Amino acid sequence: MKTTTNIKTLKDLGEAGIIRLIQGRVSQKLPSYVIKGIGDDSAVLETSGDRVLLVTTDTLIEGIHFTDQTLSPEALGWKAIAVNISDIAAMGGTPRTAFLSIGLKAESKASFLESFMVGFNALAEKTGIVLAGGDTVECPSHVLVTITLLGDCLPGSVVYRSGARVGDDVWVTGPLGNAAGGLFVLRNKQAGASLGYEFLVRAHQKPIPRLDMGKALGESGLAHAMIDISDGISKDLGHICEQSGVGAVLQEASIPMSSELIELAGARQKALQWALHGGEDYELLFTASTADKEKVESLTAKLSGRPAVKVGTVIPGNGIFLAQKKAKVPLEGGGYLHFCK
Amino acid sequence: MKTTTNIKTLKDLGEAGIIRLIQGRVSQKLPSYVIKGIGDDSAVLETSGDRVLLVTTDTLIEGIHFTDQTLSPEALGWKAIAVNISDIAAMGGTPRTAFLSIGLKAESKASFLESFMVGFNALAEKTGIVLAGGDTVECPSHVLVTITLLGDCLPGSVVYRSGARVGDDVWVTGPLGNAAGGLFVLRNKQAGASLGYEFLVRAHQKPIPRLDMGKALGESGLAHAMIDISDGISKDLGHICEQSGVGAVLQEASIPMSSELIELAGARQKALQWALHGGEDYELLFTASTADKEKVESLTAKLSGRPAVKVGTVIPGNGIFLAQKKAKVPLEGGGYLHFCK
Repeated sequence: MKTTTNIKTLKDLGEAGIIRLIQGRVSQKLPSYVIKGIGDDSAVLETSGDRVLLVTTDTLIEGIHFTDQTLSPEALGWKAIAVNISDIAAMGGTPRTAFLSIGLKAESKASFLESFMVGFNALAEKTGIVLAGGDTVECPSHVLVTITLLGDCLPGSVVYRSGARVGDDVWVTGPLGNAAGGLFVLRNKQAGASLGYEFLVRAHQKPIPRLDMGKALGESGLAHAMIDISDGISKDLGHICEQSGVGAVLQEASIPMSSELIELAGARQKALQWALHGGEDYELLFTASTADKEKVESLTAKLSGRPAVKVGTVIPGNGIFLAQKKAKVPLEGGGYLHFCK
Repeated sequence: MKTTTNIKTLKDLGEAGIIRLIQGRVSQKLPSYVIKGIGDDSAVLETSGDRVLLVTTDTLIEGIHFTDQTLSPEALGWKAIAVNISDIAAMGGTPRTAFLSIGLKAESKASFLESFMVGFNALAEKTGIVLAGGDTVECPSHVLVTITLLGDCLPGSVVYRSGARVGDDVWVTGPLGNAAGGLFVLRNKQAGASLGYEFLVRAHQKPIPRLDMGKALGESGLAHAMIDISDGISKDLGHICEQSGVGAVLQEASIPMSSELIELAGARQKALQWALHGGEDYELLFTASTADKEKVESLTAKLSGRPAVKVGTVIPGNGIFLAQKKAKVPLEGGGYLHFCK
C-alpha cells in the first residue's frame, strides 16, 4: 500500500513541509543543552562556559541561488559568508569560526577559487571570523558552497523569533528591495540597465550584515524578537508572527525604499513588490516595545548613521496585513520559496 | 599578465593543492581559542568551559561519492552521519549535535527524504546525536548532503594527527578493504556477484564508526596520533607521517583482511590493493608506544571483542614503505583523490 509520502514529491510538500517532515522524524526529546534547535536563525547550545554557542549553516547552489551572471567568484565568497553572519546577527551574537565546504568542477580555473577566497576573506577579516576547517569536493555540474558558522552570545542577550508581544512596534534596520532591484539589473544587463544602479547591484552581491546592530539590540534588551530578512519581509515577518503566536500590520507608506529602487521600478508601487517580497536584503527585522521607540531610534542611528525605521505593529491573532491609504489587505507571503519555482 | 593560477585548473592542483590554496589565502594569525584549525579530522576550539569543542564537516555528492546503485536513501542517511562521527572518533571525542544541509531535486519523492531520515536517525540515536539545525535547498541535478557535527572532549584526551613518534607501533582497529569490496559488488550487481557478500556491501553502505574505541584510546593516553581511514591507509597514514615529521613501514603480511574480501578478490594480492588503497573503511589508524602493546590489545579487545591489529612501525625520515616477504618497497599513496578521477 502506498503511503501519502510515497506519491508526493518534495515540490508538493514545499520547503515548510520538508522541514516539518525532518523535524517529525528526529527525536523530540532534546537534551537540556540544546536551548534552541531547528527553527530559528541559529541553533543555541549551552556550554559549560558563560556564553551560549550559536550555530548556523547555509548552502548556496549555482543555478538556484546564483549564476555566473549574477555573482562573480569574489562576490560569491563574500555573499556565502555574509548570509551566515546575518543569521548570527539576527540572534544578537558575535561570529567566531567558519567551516567551508565547497564543491567545484574539476575543470574550474584555480583563479575561480582564489577570487572566491578574496571575497570570503574581505568580509571574514572585517568581522573577526577565522576559517577553521571544511571540505573540498568535486561537484560535476554545479558550484556549491555550504558554510557553517559558529558564534557566541551572553545567554541573556540572545534574541529569538518567538518573543514578539502584542502592541510591539515592528522595525527594519534599513531600506528593503535593493537586493531584488540589483538582481533585476544583473539579469537584464544586456539592456544597459546597469548604468547608475551599481548601488543596487552591490546590495545583491555584497550585502553587509547588520552585526553591530544585532548585537546592540540584543545586549540592550530592546529587541523582543528578531530575524534577518533573507526571504522577504512578508515571509520573514510571518516566521516571527507564527513563532510568537501573534499577527502584524505593516504600514505600506512606511516601508523604506531607496530612490534608486523607485527610479529603476518606474513607480513606487512596483518597487514595493520588490521591497515586500524580494528578499536577500539581510537587514534585520525586529519588534520592540512602543515605550522604547526613542531608545531604538537613537541606538540604531548611533551605530549606522541612520535610525531603524518603524514599519508596523504587532496585533493579536494571526496573519500579516498591509495598511494602505484606504484599506487593510492581507499580505500574502510571496517571498522566495524553495522547491516551488 | 596571467598568473600561474589563471591557467591552472583545479584538476591540475589536486585536492592537496586546493587546500593549500585556501590555507594560503586566509589569515595565518589564529586567535588563541583555535587550538587546531584546518588540517586534522576535526577542528579543536577552546571554550570557556572545561571541555574543548570539536567541529567537523563532510559533504557527499551524488555521482561522486555515491549513486542510486551504491546507496539506498536510507544507507545515504546512515553514511552521511557515520563519516562525520568517524572524524570525531578519530580525535578521541564524543559527538553531540548535527547540522544537516541537504540539497534535493524538486521532483524527488518525499519518501526519499523519509528513508534518508530513517537511516540518519538510526545511527544518530545509537550515538546520542541531536539534529539541531540545517538548511534544505533545491539542487537541480544532484542529491547533496553536508553535515557539520559538533562534539567535545577533555583537552588532555584529544588525539591529533601530529603526535606519532619514531619507534611507535602502527595499529588499525579492524579489517581493511571491506568497503571497497562492497563497492565492487554493488557496481557489478548484474553479474550476480552480490550473493554471499552482504557483509562487504554493509561495510560500504553502513559503516560503524569506532566511537568507543577512539574515546578509550584518547582517554587512556595510549594513542599518540590518530586518524580515521576514509581515503585508504596508504593516504591516511601519509597524513599522520607528514604532520608528525616521520615515516612508516607497513608489514604487508599483517594487513588485516576478511576472508570474504579475499574470496571476492580471488587472490590475497588483489584483495591487498583494496585494503591499502580502497578507503571508506572508517576504521581508526593510530600509533602507540611499543611498550604499550599489551595495553592496546587488551583495551581494544575489551571494547570490540577483537583486538586492534599492529600493522607497522614509525620510522625516522619520511615516506611510507611496504615490507614484503623479500623486499621493502615505497608505498604510493593511491587512495581516493578528489578532482583527479
